[in-house]
Amino acid sequence: MQDRLTFIQNLSAEAGALAQDLRSAQGDGFVETKGHQDFVTVADRAVEELIRSRIAEAYPNEHVLGEEAGQSGEGPALWVVDPIDGTANYMRGAPDWAVSIAFVQDGIITHGGICAPDLNIMIWAEKGKGAGSNVGEVALSQCQDPKMALLMLGWSARQTVPGHLEIIGKALEAGMEYRRNGCAVVSLLALALGRAEAYWERQVNAWDVFAMRLILEEAGARIISPDVLSFIPNGGPFLAVVPGVEEEMRAVIGAI
Amino acid sequence: MQDRLTFIQNLSAEAGALAQDLRSAQGDGFVETKGHQDFVTVADRAVEELIRSRIAEAYPNEHVLGEEAGQSGEGPALWVVDPIDGTANYMRGAPDWAVSIAFVQDGIITHGGICAPDLNIMIWAEKGKGAGSNVGEVALSQCQDPKMALLMLGWSARQTVPGHLEIIGKALEAGMEYRRNGCAVVSLLALALGRAEAYWERQVNAWDVFAMRLILEEAGARIISPDVLSFIPNGGPFLAVVPGVEEEMRAVIGAI
Repeated sequence: MQDRLTFIQNLSAEAGALAQDLRSAQGDGFVETKGHQDFVTVADRAVEELIRSRIAEAYPNEHVLGEEAGQSGEGPALWVVDPIDGTANYMRGAPDWAVSIAFVQDGIITHGGICAPDLNIMIWAEKGKGAGSNVGEVALSQCQDPKMALLMLGWSARQTVPGHLEIIGKALEAGMEYRRNGCAVVSLLALALGRAEAYWERQVNAWDVFAMRLILEEAGARIISPDVLSFIPNGGPFLAVVPGVEEEMRAVIGAI
Repeated sequence: MQDRLTFIQNLSAEAGALAQDLRSAQGDGFVETKGHQDFVTVADRAVEELIRSRIAEAYPNEHVLGEEAGQSGEGPALWVVDPIDGTANYMRGAPDWAVSIAFVQDGIITHGGICAPDLNIMIWAEKGKGAGSNVGEVALSQCQDPKMALLMLGWSARQTVPGHLEIIGKALEAGMEYRRNGCAVVSLLALALGRAEAYWERQVNAWDVFAMRLILEEAGARIISPDVLSFIPNGGPFLAVVPGVEEEMRAVIGAI
């Protein structure tokens, strides 16, 4: 039997390819609206089903928490998966979306992998063994100057508009730059590949960030967020930052 | 001799490949700071030199306006080129950057082409003959609902922070979503490929937008911006929007 990390790598790639195929073949009703500017596609559900069935075959005693179908049961071994993070990009044909698969054992994320098929990027980590990718070394930015720093920002309608604008304003006033691409996983990927110095979102879910959380921790990033078990039920705030600008970035974000 | 559009297609691809090669081979001093969070690389200059020399060989009586080296002379035939739009992304290894080449005859943009090498996208147009790309049909979004619309936003330190925050706030309050990717050309590309409904920036330069302006006009987008000749010296405001949400988008942006 393949080891758990190889299983995750293969499954994230298979899931990403299925999402691409389903988008190419889409018909009427492919996109549904869950809420205002909040979408789900036929592919979100089909990809999550694929992931659940592969896990059930390989690890029949373990449970799954997924964005679309919730949590399958309680136990010390939990898979936390987002079939498509960045659905609004995916359905428009934009490349910033990804499959995210993490495994939590006794409250510790021990394995994680993501696949961003339109970007041709896969990245993964195993706790204590470091992170790897198909596009070279996983190495954080060595930036120590906030006036050279780039902050990736997430926002959804679960957060207030004024609170979001305040963070953008404070970051720009501090001399930082910012981007918003509409996908937490791909934003965190930018950190892991040394292309940005921080990511912040006031309210994200476990499936959005758990795989990248482990990958970034293994790469040496600081994660300021509630602990894993308390994050699972309802998500929460999430700041990831490279050590060189941690202090200045915390000052921009304020209390977490 | 190849026609002018083929010349632009070939030159934008050659320029994009040179930028990729120079980034791979970069040494110390590759990046310089022009101003706060405003960067120029060895590649910006080398790619513009390549473009200028190819134009001088093929069209020796025509002039060039480029981001890095200014305007070479006055006359009715002017090339307007940005060797790398999105330098801050390019130098970080992020994919959202592009080469942009436009040709203006007697105040009319008659030909334009861009190459976004990391995205594997080329797109082009000739006035009155439509737009084409290497990734399928150039077709605008048919969206008519502002609550489903996506606005691509540009900002630079030449604009105020409060003015930028006001636009984000008004767009979100109107039920739109927004992205900011740090590259005008790639933002406008999203419109041309039907992935977004509008692009707005308070102050852009001619080299940032002229090629995509023609491409989007040929695709049926509305452009709200000063006329081409008055834009050349100092740039200005630029709104591009699909017809279905033009009215609502103008209400968000306000007077231009």
